[in-house]
Amino acid sequence: MTQLESYITEHKDRFLEDLKGWLRIPSISTLPEHTGDVHQAAAYAVDQLKAVGFERAELISTAGHPLVYGEWLQAPGKPTILVYGHYDVQPVDPIELWTTPPFEPTVRNENIYARGAADDKGQVMLIFKALEALMNVEGKLPVNVKVLIEGEEEAGGESIEHYIRTTPEPLKCDAAFICDTHVPSKEIPALIYGLRGIIYTEVEVYGAQQDLHSGTYGGIAPNPLHALAIIISRLKDADGHIHIPGLYEKLNKPTHAEKSFWQHDPLHMNEALREEMGVAQLSGELEYPPLERISARPTLEVHGISGGFIGEGAKTVIPAVAKAKISMRLPAEFKPDEIFALFEQAVKELAPSDVTVKVTNLHSGEGVLVSPDTLPMKAAAAALTEVYGKEPVFLREGGSIPIAALFNEILQVPVVLMGFGLPDDNLHAPNEKYSLSQFYNGIRTVTRFLQKMAL
Amino acid sequence: MTQLESYITEHKDRFLEDLKGWLRIPSISTLPEHTGDVHQAAAYAVDQLKAVGFERAELISTAGHPLVYGEWLQAPGKPTILVYGHYDVQPVDPIELWTTPPFEPTVRNENIYARGAADDKGQVMLIFKALEALMNVEGKLPVNVKVLIEGEEEAGGESIEHYIRTTPEPLKCDAAFICDTHVPSKEIPALIYGLRGIIYTEVEVYGAQQDLHSGTYGGIAPNPLHALAIIISRLKDADGHIHIPGLYEKLNKPTHAEKSFWQHDPLHMNEALREEMGVAQLSGELEYPPLERISARPTLEVHGISGGFIGEGAKTVIPAVAKAKISMRLPAEFKPDEIFALFEQAVKELAPSDVTVKVTNLHSGEGVLVSPDTLPMKAAAAALTEVYGKEPVFLREGGSIPIAALFNEILQVPVVLMGFGLPDDNLHAPNEKYSLSQFYNGIRTVTRFLQKMAL
Repeated sequence: MTQLESYITEHKDRFLEDLKGWLRIPSISTLPEHTGDVHQAAAYAVDQLKAVGFERAELISTAGHPLVYGEWLQAPGKPTILVYGHYDVQPVDPIELWTTPPFEPTVRNENIYARGAADDKGQVMLIFKALEALMNVEGKLPVNVKVLIEGEEEAGGESIEHYIRTTPEPLKCDAAFICDTHVPSKEIPALIYGLRGIIYTEVEVYGAQQDLHSGTYGGIAPNPLHALAIIISRLKDADGHIHIPGLYEKLNKPTHAEKSFWQHDPLHMNEALREEMGVAQLSGELEYPPLERISARPTLEVHGISGGFIGEGAKTVIPAVAKAKISMRLPAEFKPDEIFALFEQAVKELAPSDVTVKVTNLHSGEGVLVSPDTLPMKAAAAALTEVYGKEPVFLREGGSIPIAALFNEILQVPVVLMGFGLPDDNLHAPNEKYSLSQFYNGIRTVTRFLQKMAL
Repeated sequence: MTQLESYITEHKDRFLEDLKGWLRIPSISTLPEHTGDVHQAAAYAVDQLKAVGFERAELISTAGHPLVYGEWLQAPGKPTILVYGHYDVQPVDPIELWTTPPFEPTVRNENIYARGAADDKGQVMLIFKALEALMNVEGKLPVNVKVLIEGEEEAGGESIEHYIRTTPEPLKCDAAFICDTHVPSKEIPALIYGLRGIIYTEVEVYGAQQDLHSGTYGGIAPNPLHALAIIISRLKDADGHIHIPGLYEKLNKPTHAEKSFWQHDPLHMNEALREEMGVAQLSGELEYPPLERISARPTLEVHGISGGFIGEGAKTVIPAVAKAKISMRLPAEFKPDEIFALFEQAVKELAPSDVTVKVTNLHSGEGVLVSPDTLPMKAAAAALTEVYGKEPVFLREGGSIPIAALFNEILQVPVVLMGFGLPDDNLHAPNEKYSLSQFYNGIRTVTRFLQKMAL
């Protein structure tokens, strides 16, 4: 390992420069004006794989943004690992809250600040660099490796889902490795054994046939914005309880170990979460421990409401139409399609009678639960233990990685969710960052993980 | 009168061209990028007054957009009429719903379509043309006339309020005439004896110190958008009842005549309103007649909600801040400052405990009630009767003209609210229009009104 460590130390600065080059490309997958940038970010990943020495490294066209595919299959008799990541990033609004521009990566206090630094370019780049180190030091990789990187993770991931469902054969593998999660702190290595699923919906509310003046019609006009407020307030109350009939009945009982971990909070995660949010008290269902609320309970959030007038000044308009983006996070036992049907029905029943409502499922993904007793999970745990000097904790995460559920369902292999992000990385928010020490420890861990997979 | 009628007929087309020229100027007072246009629209009005032969016609500088002032005081012994209007217009969003561009005035089906056609440039232009006709036919005006036209009616009207409060002396008059209202139909002349007041507020809700990812924090994070939905749904229920303690106690009892008019709806206005809105049923407090609900009851409407993400696609953000624009329409007996205090207190009490709330009164205006027995109201009624061949109905309107309350309070003169708009003029909405027959009948009516004021 000394040779590998020397290689990593020697090429430290170039690894960071390669990451910066990737972060400079504003690959925002949801904004059509960035389509060219998204393509450029994909090409950058292909070049990285070619530089590592992959025998195949190419773009796969899709109906949307291209997939990056690479393979190195010269370890006969050894297992094949499918590595997943995404090269697309979230939009940057509100842009005015960024300390430095989102696409001018800047190092401050041993962190690199940029949109996508943690989610997910930094975490994918550390895999590239682990592969490079292994290849250049050992002359080969310890296992067979397939790499599949998508450009629509922040936009619903439709293309990769279509590809995996229609072309599963070339992706055949013994384990999947996803590097898109975070750990409680730099000192505490962790493996994620559970993720929540998601449905992301749009609720459209229609009132009069045109926008109306509130002076002339106020008192007799349906107001779709007001109707939306009523629907949203009825869907979830101020105490965090979701009022969708049939929802909570689908929930499995947690294990005793889980209950104990959530209740005792040995890593003091509650306090860390409170500090990250900058609030006096945690919100939500107070009768459940916070760690259960963010990982194993269903939640419902409204992300934006449009319609009417929100510009400078005053406009006394009653809009004809209003829309809300509302998502639900789902424990792994919830089937997104079933939950969407319950959601849609509840919205229609909760809507005031003077408006009509349309509910659309913009995208959805299943949750996932992986046993810590599988071989790949054990290899990952051993690698983390060596690099961090202590055994990892096993955690359930509140976020959604639909691809993990898809690997589970289609490829039917264990999925290792080992990421190196930190809780204060500001994912999807201004001033997203990634810790440099986590970046380099991630490289070290991945080299060891792949070596252990060969044993 | 034959000579006046001939003059109007002869100059019909030029009157329309002069209106079109004014409507082409996008004088949107709330958008800073249109400041130059607003100024140009003011200069256009000055030129119109000069062309009539006014001895003074000039701009008065203010802290905001300029006032247009004109006077012709060569009728000694005759009353002085103060004429008011506004040359600014509403924003044009949603622009894509306009059949023809908002600032390219177009005549279709005997209507002129443009932003500001009815509110209020068309109604001010008809006064200019009535003055021109009187001056050119008679060589003088029958009464003394002062003209005061503002450029901030759609932006709160602060400058004219400041001017009137600090400089009332030059505005001394015997009656004020405001042409900024509408009638039930082309066949039914009307005078407005009541207007509602308004408070237009912004409610800001603060949660965490930064935007959060709903996967990581969903279940323990305060969501300001959700809190706003709860506040709004608690402020007004689905049946139109406002839950602000102390509000309804301030309401005066309507007269028996009013009750009877609202109940019997002799002009079939309910059906017209329903058709204009394109709805199956009228919304709101079903236990009160619709005409009472839109003219004499307090109402509360949300006009827009900002915060989070409303762009294309999906962003799973829990915003740190959300804001709503909420207005209330107020019967004349309600004092805006008192109602705002009740509103602010109610919002704070109704807000969930995990957010903080700030409430701002963006602007407000008092309502007004004028007796139909005053001399100016009688002169206006007689003029309408001559032109339309029937006596006008006396109506209370639901909209707000703060300036009417100000004339009442500061100048202490009767205010004649005689406008010629129609209910389907699409004020503040796409495809705003003004009826050409109302435009010309308005010119005829105003010439007669001023003549009768001299008797």
